[in-house]
Amino acid sequence: MREEDVETPALLLDLDAFEHNLDTMAAFLAPTGAKLRAHAKTHKSAVVAMAQMRRGAIGQCVQKVGEAEALAWGGIPDILVSNEVVGPKKLARLLALSGIAKLALCVDGLEQIAAAEAAAEAANHRLSVLVEIDVGGARCGVRPGPEAVALAERIAASPHLRFGGLQAYHGSAQHIRGLEERGAAIAQAAEDSRRTVEQLRQRGLDCPIVGGAGTGTFGFEVASGIYTEIQAGSYAFMDADYARNTTPPPFRHSLFVLATVMSRAVPGVAVVDAGHKAIPTDSGYPTLWERPGLRYTGASDEHGKIEIGDGAAPALGEKLRLVPGHCDPAVDRYDWYVGVRKGRVECLWPIAARGAMQ
Amino acid sequence: MREEDVETPALLLDLDAFEHNLDTMAAFLAPTGAKLRAHAKTHKSAVVAMAQMRRGAIGQCVQKVGEAEALAWGGIPDILVSNEVVGPKKLARLLALSGIAKLALCVDGLEQIAAAEAAAEAANHRLSVLVEIDVGGARCGVRPGPEAVALAERIAASPHLRFGGLQAYHGSAQHIRGLEERGAAIAQAAEDSRRTVEQLRQRGLDCPIVGGAGTGTFGFEVASGIYTEIQAGSYAFMDADYARNTTPPPFRHSLFVLATVMSRAVPGVAVVDAGHKAIPTDSGYPTLWERPGLRYTGASDEHGKIEIGDGAAPALGEKLRLVPGHCDPAVDRYDWYVGVRKGRVECLWPIAARGAMQ
Repeated sequence: MREEDVETPALLLDLDAFEHNLDTMAAFLAPTGAKLRAHAKTHKSAVVAMAQMRRGAIGQCVQKVGEAEALAWGGIPDILVSNEVVGPKKLARLLALSGIAKLALCVDGLEQIAAAEAAAEAANHRLSVLVEIDVGGARCGVRPGPEAVALAERIAASPHLRFGGLQAYHGSAQHIRGLEERGAAIAQAAEDSRRTVEQLRQRGLDCPIVGGAGTGTFGFEVASGIYTEIQAGSYAFMDADYARNTTPPPFRHSLFVLATVMSRAVPGVAVVDAGHKAIPTDSGYPTLWERPGLRYTGASDEHGKIEIGDGAAPALGEKLRLVPGHCDPAVDRYDWYVGVRKGRVECLWPIAARGAMQ
Repeated sequence: MREEDVETPALLLDLDAFEHNLDTMAAFLAPTGAKLRAHAKTHKSAVVAMAQMRRGAIGQCVQKVGEAEALAWGGIPDILVSNEVVGPKKLARLLALSGIAKLALCVDGLEQIAAAEAAAEAANHRLSVLVEIDVGGARCGVRPGPEAVALAERIAASPHLRFGGLQAYHGSAQHIRGLEERGAAIAQAAEDSRRTVEQLRQRGLDCPIVGGAGTGTFGFEVASGIYTEIQAGSYAFMDADYARNTTPPPFRHSLFVLATVMSRAVPGVAVVDAGHKAIPTDSGYPTLWERPGLRYTGASDEHGKIEIGDGAAPALGEKLRLVPGHCDPAVDRYDWYVGVRKGRVECLWPIAARGAMQ
């Protein structure tokens, strides 16, 4: 099947660009001390995870237990929930995967440690637990230093838990436009992490993992020498927002929403069949791929409004590739990747963790 | 099961409020000349559609063929695609439903009429086709008056098509804050529709349907006397955006995303497990239900940041009801409604058309 025969809206994965991105990240990290634990919150697919693992990723991150289930059942052997897991049912579901995958999760409070200990004891399993520190995002995480050390000691003293390290992700830094400001934010995060690791050592606690970094900053975390695991996810796909943050190495757009022009009745406007339900707008409107003169300027639930510049008019029924503003929630709207190469459909990959919010 | 035992994020439907909304709309429309053809793009569920039909709705609107399939297979007998359907495969899928449901669709150009005629001929079925007119949204639709009449005549002259009427929905007017300005926008839309109906009559064409109106404006369309079918959808659920548009009759919030507090590590902040993937932000952040002092002030993919005012601190693990800013894309993120009444779970209703974008 040719790309232009794919029914729309559809989530396209350009396989050449995708493989380029995976190879580029692997080559970048190979000579460094940092390993890739790619973030599956972006791709939600054991197929994509396997492609990353084959290129040297040591495991995957997830944000939700449901994502861990989809990956573990899909054969991924090493999964970190880079997030807090609250509630006994969710903890029990996570522990139930311990027979088929190596698991870890994050905490940022004593209550969560007690709950994890109870769940691990009930499952008769020793669970690895990381302490999340707030390195600038002011979202989750305790303060670096003594607060984090106190939690680590409590974990280490829990019979069914093992202290796994520090989760030190600076989410808001990913989208700082200026390279220098981004670097400064990560320099502070690295310094916070380094200080906490030293204080842990002084208390006799080894820190096996310092994890964090995203597509907007990972070069800085790698350069710091303190981060052992890089949790980038978007690099595999890229999106319009990350494309505005130019950081080497260069990644290509591999993820697109294919849309069809469904109305040309209003002068100067082409309406496509992809609105809020087909493509996210939280990080800006999508951009048009290789169609200069066309601009996506408004979304309603099922419609996207495209303004037509000089000489760029698309025909009714014409299919256009949209580059999502934000790749993660774009993927989460679809059940399948339509893998294309040089204009032909090559594969359909299930997005098994689509909607796995729990 | 009690509401507080529901795993999160989950989509809650408060059944008392939902039934109140359906009863209120039915009572409002009963003495008027207008009928309800409720919009299923909001609820995406044959169960909800049936509840509307039992209270006098004459049918349902959809935006996509996939939604029509979910409703027709669920037993809904009368479905209007209030939108253009472009592409022979989609038209063939729609026609394939003609054995189990009465169908109609909209066009805003000659090419679409030719394509609908070809599809209807291939299916050996006479298909009802409405002309969409642009009454102010500048999205889809031809200009009212002669352009619309020309399309209607072409439809009427097509052997396998039947002219069904006018689609005259003013989407952007729904969200105008001032009641007077909203009324003025709909007065213009009604005048455009009335003029076009008269010109159709002069050409010997009866106009069985004038359809349009949403939750923000339907009182005006009904009062105009020209609209025969009201296409409101959100009234069944309400959302934070529509709550800011006060229009009688009063509807209640029946739709919520239930979320759990997953971190209290950062002072003054509660982080919940519902971010961009669990709740839309295109029409503003969600509001907190019956929790004064709490404000949802930031979303990332899997996290919602809630700022805590005086004396309002929620505990780790506590569950909070969020009122979505925009109900339609909220529903489209979930596979089930969890129906609750007075704090107990009463039913699970499938959202069969979740993700039915094609």
